[in-house]
Amino acid sequence: MARDTRERMVLATSKLLQRKGFHGTGLNQILAEAEAPKGSMYFHFPGGKDQLAAEAIRSSGDYVDRALRAHETANALESVDTYLADLGEALERSGFVAGCPIATAALEVGATTPEVGDACHAAFEKLIGRVAGWIEADGADHATASDQAFLIYSAIEGALVLAKAQRSIEPLRRLRAQLPRLLGRPTT
Amino acid sequence: MARDTRERMVLATSKLLQRKGFHGTGLNQILAEAEAPKGSMYFHFPGGKDQLAAEAIRSSGDYVDRALRAHETANALESVDTYLADLGEALERSGFVAGCPIATAALEVGATTPEVGDACHAAFEKLIGRVAGWIEADGADHATASDQAFLIYSAIEGALVLAKAQRSIEPLRRLRAQLPRLLGRPTT
Repeated sequence: MARDTRERMVLATSKLLQRKGFHGTGLNQILAEAEAPKGSMYFHFPGGKDQLAAEAIRSSGDYVDRALRAHETANALESVDTYLADLGEALERSGFVAGCPIATAALEVGATTPEVGDACHAAFEKLIGRVAGWIEADGADHATASDQAFLIYSAIEGALVLAKAQRSIEPLRRLRAQLPRLLGRPTT
Repeated sequence: MARDTRERMVLATSKLLQRKGFHGTGLNQILAEAEAPKGSMYFHFPGGKDQLAAEAIRSSGDYVDRALRAHETANALESVDTYLADLGEALERSGFVAGCPIATAALEVGATTPEVGDACHAAFEKLIGRVAGWIEADGADHATASDQAFLIYSAIEGALVLAKAQRSIEPLRRLRAQLPRLLGRPTT
């Protein structure tokens, strides 16, 4: 039961970080959404909000990695494309509040709260590594796969910033249309 | 003098949004940094924090556009590359707190506060249009220039997210190395 409370708190924090960011997420709201008693915060997370946020970011990184893997095929282009199609649908369905669960905290406090910055960095490395693995398995050499995955993941993060600003999945559509070029494939 | 107070408030808000985001920026801090009396907020900005933030985002968009134009040459690749070199230097000098002055607010409240979202969207359109203009002037057709500028600007925003998380300008360096490919130029 104690374990459940802790897990609920991490999950609630992940969702709140995704929708409202670090500064927009209050401890009372976390406790309320996790249905956790007041004392749970410093009992489970003696390091306070920073520790809880770092753990939520790690959990979010694992969540996004599972989402990536659910789209894995032998064709890297198809894997990224179908992932982005589903990401766009989920974003639209949420009224454009549910974008990347890591990026907002990274921009807000990545540079000033090392515990959170490190968790964001490790999550991004893992996700870029996942995409790089797809590209390499699809025939590219290691260095090329790594460069292309970095560029694709950067463009995804940027397209999500643009999509939230304009409340439209058009930026994700545009990015999908350019994936062949990003992957060095002939465009049709 | 009233005009000066208003301008100081917009400037202070722009800087705070860049460093701490929307939710991390308090009205009292804005007033303090702008050296503005208490009543200034609703005297100059009857629409409150949303109105002030939207105006600060517009002002930041103009600021970034001036920074882009300061790097304008006849060669689009060189223009983007030297802009990114200076952006990286400024980011590093700030201890990685001063990234894009628009993206954090876009992720936090772009989808939920239309006044701020619209200002972010308009600013991004202007900046992407600036880069597209460079690429078109450098010989690309309009549609290609627009696609390449969109992709480059998305990648810049994403690389800034990664740079803040890892407190390193390495992502900007990697992006610069891939600019020739993004612009369809032969790589050396």
